[in-house]
Amino acid sequence: MRNFTSAHDVTDIDALVQTALGYKADPFKDKVLGTNKRIGCLFLNPSMRTRLSTQIAAQNLGMEAIIFNVGNEGWALEFEDEAIMSGSTVEHVKDAAPIFGNYFDILAIRTFPSLKNREDDYSELYIKQIIKYAGIPVVSLESSTLHPLQSLTDIITIQETLLNSSSGIGRKPKIVLTWAPHVKPLPQCVANSFAQWVNAWGKADFVITHPEDYELSEEFTKGASITHNQEEALKGADFVYVKNWSTYNDYGKIYTNDPKWMLKHKRWVHTNNAKIMHCLPVRRNVELSDEMLDGDMSIVTQQASNRVWAAQAVLSEILKSNG
Amino acid sequence: MRNFTSAHDVTDIDALVQTALGYKADPFKDKVLGTNKRIGCLFLNPSMRTRLSTQIAAQNLGMEAIIFNVGNEGWALEFEDEAIMSGSTVEHVKDAAPIFGNYFDILAIRTFPSLKNREDDYSELYIKQIIKYAGIPVVSLESSTLHPLQSLTDIITIQETLLNSSSGIGRKPKIVLTWAPHVKPLPQCVANSFAQWVNAWGKADFVITHPEDYELSEEFTKGASITHNQEEALKGADFVYVKNWSTYNDYGKIYTNDPKWMLKHKRWVHTNNAKIMHCLPVRRNVELSDEMLDGDMSIVTQQASNRVWAAQAVLSEILKSNG
Amino acid sequence: MRNFTSAHDVTDIDALVQTALGYKADPFKDKVLGTNKRIGCLFLNPSMRTRLSTQIAAQNLGMEAIIFNVGNEGWALEFEDEAIMSGSTVEHVKDAAPIFGNYFDILAIRTFPSLKNREDDYSELYIKQIIKYAGIPVVSLESSTLHPLQSLTDIITIQETLLNSSSGIGRKPKIVLTWAPHVKPLPQCVANSFAQWVNAWGKADFVITHPEDYELSEEFTKGASITHNQEEALKGADFVYVKNWSTYNDYGKIYTNDPKWMLKHKRWVHTNNAKIMHCLPVRRNVELSDEMLDGDMSIVTQQASNRVWAAQAVLSEILKSNG
Repeated sequence: MRNFTSAHDVTDIDALVQTALGYKADPFKDKVLGTNKRIGCLFLNPSMRTRLSTQIAAQNLGMEAIIFNVGNEGWALEFEDEAIMSGSTVEHVKDAAPIFGNYFDILAIRTFPSLKNREDDYSELYIKQIIKYAGIPVVSLESSTLHPLQSLTDIITIQETLLNSSSGIGRKPKIVLTWAPHVKPLPQCVANSFAQWVNAWGKADFVITHPEDYELSEEFTKGASITHNQEEALKGADFVYVKNWSTYNDYGKIYTNDPKWMLKHKRWVHTNNAKIMHCLPVRRNVELSDEMLDGDMSIVTQQASNRVWAAQAVLSEILKSNG
Repeated sequence: MRNFTSAHDVTDIDALVQTALGYKADPFKDKVLGTNKRIGCLFLNPSMRTRLSTQIAAQNLGMEAIIFNVGNEGWALEFEDEAIMSGSTVEHVKDAAPIFGNYFDILAIRTFPSLKNREDDYSELYIKQIIKYAGIPVVSLESSTLHPLQSLTDIITIQETLLNSSSGIGRKPKIVLTWAPHVKPLPQCVANSFAQWVNAWGKADFVITHPEDYELSEEFTKGASITHNQEEALKGADFVYVKNWSTYNDYGKIYTNDPKWMLKHKRWVHTNNAKIMHCLPVRRNVELSDEMLDGDMSIVTQQASNRVWAAQAVLSEILKSNG
Repeated sequence: MRNFTSAHDVTDIDALVQTALGYKADPFKDKVLGTNKRIGCLFLNPSMRTRLSTQIAAQNLGMEAIIFNVGNEGWALEFEDEAIMSGSTVEHVKDAAPIFGNYFDILAIRTFPSLKNREDDYSELYIKQIIKYAGIPVVSLESSTLHPLQSLTDIITIQETLLNSSSGIGRKPKIVLTWAPHVKPLPQCVANSFAQWVNAWGKADFVITHPEDYELSEEFTKGASITHNQEEALKGADFVYVKNWSTYNDYGKIYTNDPKWMLKHKRWVHTNNAKIMHCLPVRRNVELSDEMLDGDMSIVTQQASNRVWAAQAVLSEILKSNG
């Protein structure tokens, strides 16, 4: 594996999941792999789990991790080619990225979308420019349209849960991705990415449910069943992934924000005792009720904790294949 | 020791002081103790000595220290149970803390009081919620009402100074905690905590002096003599701890700010050649005069430098008892 | 070497350059040198290359590096002696620096000039106070008037380029420092420092060119030829260092900002196939055109990458001479 920016960078998702679960069982088994190797983690946006889990994963592999909050500790980067830089951006990615490439062995970067211009955001200019100019392997810590470390964690968590159920379910699990209300417009990244990975994994019956007008890009959802009827979607579900996103078509907006879409126990009962997932942070009692998050059905802590093993699997694969 | 949030968490203060002085003599003697252990340091507020000394203490023990500036690098946490999170807080401590508990072996956190609502601040909701939900040992890097790492340092510094005085003083030392002027309302944490620790240590004659209306909570001061007459209090003092705090009764206010309360040489002469202490940062020529801070009587640098050994003693005790 | 704040701290620039190139060839050869040693890096201003390269250099030597963003993570420091601290500064350098001196083995600090008062800036009060009170070796990460780690890198890069040219040039290289336009007033640090180092190195024909009114201090430029005619200056140049600075005489201002001073190919052709240097960050198409930065003549990436080896050479010299 050279870069890790989407499901398409992974040739064998199951193998990567096994690598991750192996690290969960024995975190320090590859502590010499990263000796004298260094990862630079560039944050253009806030981060908690991604930030911490990536540092921990690197340390578990014996790597040095250097964190750089680009805007706060440095200055604004320019990503447009041929820009006349007389405005607010101070340094061009063409100049900065090759230096990162010389300073580090792996470069990781978080870049949120603007939610203002769909074409710009979906061009993934920022991470593409970083890959183009850095000359070293690049790991997405969430980009404008995708969040692959989150999605790998999600598949790990689903697989781990299936393995831990004593008898198994004897069929493909039914996984539902449901839209939830929120107080402000959020990127589509987590939803796009989850859809992309579940489809690429190919071992589930996959349903996506959301109110009208919240259609995601078919680039990611193709292969899933899509319905505007949450109650119908939930029937017999084994896993329910709850997540808000803003509109894709009339881009970056909130249309309806109907609180009925907040998953509660009375709708959850229609599932097959489904496990509840969320990437966090979650707005309690807006996106998901306390009763769901605090109940036995919630696996959000397990899911977030698995972020470490997902990152460790990805970094170790990159180290091994780019020795 | 499970957590370190107040003097009540310590069964034997003298033993902890000895452990700290042992590390001062030989900083790296336990460098294998922390192998593959990790401390997460969460800062909801600014910090200099506490931040640096905790990182250094962890490194001296061979631990990995990860710093996370919660507000700047992440987002605002919610601490109230059952909150409907439609406002400015992005993630609930109920969701974040268990994940920290899985990421780290020890969690350290700094949370200042609001100084707006006494009942809220003195409930210590933030650190209590962290302890409740993290599931791992928690170290206070200063909470709403207490600053135990500072106070342990203070006792270490007093004990060290007594041990280093060639002949000893042949009696209990007289320790005076005196209020000082400041330009803005400050928490009562350092004063509360110093009083709590001196009382728990039990090896001093302890006097607290402040202007009227600056009474501290009896929860912490009980056992000390309290007077509004600074000059009287200073007589025969061996250690004078200088510190501003805002009012406790009519909460979080500045009543008088009489510059006469700034300790100067002409009042210091009434002491028994007392050593001057302050937790720093200190507003020079507002809280304490240059002549005091720059004179031989000041031990503020020694005191601040001992922060490393206090933190190292606490972390090592927690590692040993939660191995 | 005790401190590293200007060319005057270095007795043998060539030897230091050789040490740096030695680390470039074998980065980890001194990884035990820094065992149990610690560098504190204090940033009062933003930084990218300096921040990252110093951390990497320290790690390569086996040192612990602790980063502290003084203003964001802590609070404003006071540097004036005898200040009555009733304003916005929270802690005096007299109190903070000795503690840094006890916490760390080496202290590194970045402090930009105000560009408001020349006398204040050129007194270098901040770094002088740090040196006075810290009691340990101090490394400048750029101060009010100088940027010595950058200049050492520049000499390393020039030397390396000369060594790599198959036949050599058989004479002293001609080095030109040229002013360039910018959108806001910048410090004179990089220009001052480059002039100081090239003069101290003494192995070049050195020409400085800038528009009228942009004269630098003779303290640094003495020994160089100075001309207002860029085209004339460029003739036969082997290295052209491009950099903006604000006025020194009528301090901190922008007089002319003539875009003709932006180096383009049609002027570059008058050089001896000169290599183009810049300390970065560079405003593309304001300071330097894309055609220059993207062409084979640019060595800005090599130059920025050498920052690691410059810092590593400096830290290792300090460790060796202050063991």
